[in-house]
Amino acid sequence: MTIEYATRYRSASRIPADPAKPYFIEKGEGDRAHLFGDLVTVYAGGEQTEGTFNFFTVEGPKGDVIPAHRHADTHEVFYITAGAVRLFVEDTEGEQQEKLLTPGDFGFVPKNCTHAYRMERHHSQVVGVAAGPAGTFERFFETLGAPVTELGLPRTPLIPAPEKFATVPREYDVEFKPGHQWRTR
Amino acid sequence: MTIEYATRYRSASRIPADPAKPYFIEKGEGDRAHLFGDLVTVYAGGEQTEGTFNFFTVEGPKGDVIPAHRHADTHEVFYITAGAVRLFVEDTEGEQQEKLLTPGDFGFVPKNCTHAYRMERHHSQVVGVAAGPAGTFERFFETLGAPVTELGLPRTPLIPAPEKFATVPREYDVEFKPGHQWRTR
Repeated sequence: MTIEYATRYRSASRIPADPAKPYFIEKGEGDRAHLFGDLVTVYAGGEQTEGTFNFFTVEGPKGDVIPAHRHADTHEVFYITAGAVRLFVEDTEGEQQEKLLTPGDFGFVPKNCTHAYRMERHHSQVVGVAAGPAGTFERFFETLGAPVTELGLPRTPLIPAPEKFATVPREYDVEFKPGHQWRTR
Repeated sequence: MTIEYATRYRSASRIPADPAKPYFIEKGEGDRAHLFGDLVTVYAGGEQTEGTFNFFTVEGPKGDVIPAHRHADTHEVFYITAGAVRLFVEDTEGEQQEKLLTPGDFGFVPKNCTHAYRMERHHSQVVGVAAGPAGTFERFFETLGAPVTELGLPRTPLIPAPEKFATVPREYDVEFKPGHQWRTR
């Protein structure tokens, strides 16, 4: 039996509206969103955890490095479950590191550290947890991009309307750093 | 280059003592502990996230269902990355569910819900996040069990000293439910 719930985010979601209710979600069936070429799937959000943490995946094709950005109040986990992902990060003193992560590898980006990544294999998947004392981050992707009901990667990249960049990133504690240079190689 | 740090938990850890520092950890090289037949590996703890969340893996052999227990203030994620794990959970109204989870499947156990699991294939692996407003949970395993430096599963099960059961679970918001029955089949 598959149960779907109406929530504030979806008319049909596998995540119960009642945060006291335990639940299971099969692979791929969380709340899905497209942003650029990626598929983001939310399995748990701040509503489930009294605002302490979330749990989502990001899947994408081999591609370019994403725009450098940082979060003033959000710590972020990158845990690779498929493919290969190069994570770039700069600490608050300006020291930069990069590393190619493959399945089972882990990266941690504390708040205020500018970061970016590049998927270096098709069908790469990252498990993400992104939260801090000010709240959780998981609805950024569908607010800048768009919620979808279909399964799978976007057939064509979902490019956000330009006016969204003026409001959505700030609302979700995302500060893009245009012109940021990665000097790690 | 591999950097190791002295922390309050390990004389040589891949997790920096300074929570402002970004870091990478290759597969298996987090802070390791043995408890019963399982290997627990912590990749991030409360120190990294201002006490909001953590990130760890539990690997084990095919075995028996673990003791039923609950957490008064801790919400818990089970995300399967290898093998097969049957998750049992009872909500606060006494309704029970169980489901066999395979890689990519997700289970969420809210606070106060009694739960247990059984690894149903050798070399199963669960990614866990377990935290709530009162703090994070990740050092329970090595406090009840023992920290180790070796890689891999315990050669022989690590059985905690009986007196530990009187103090450690309470310290880490774990309440065992002896005699609990799973009636899901």
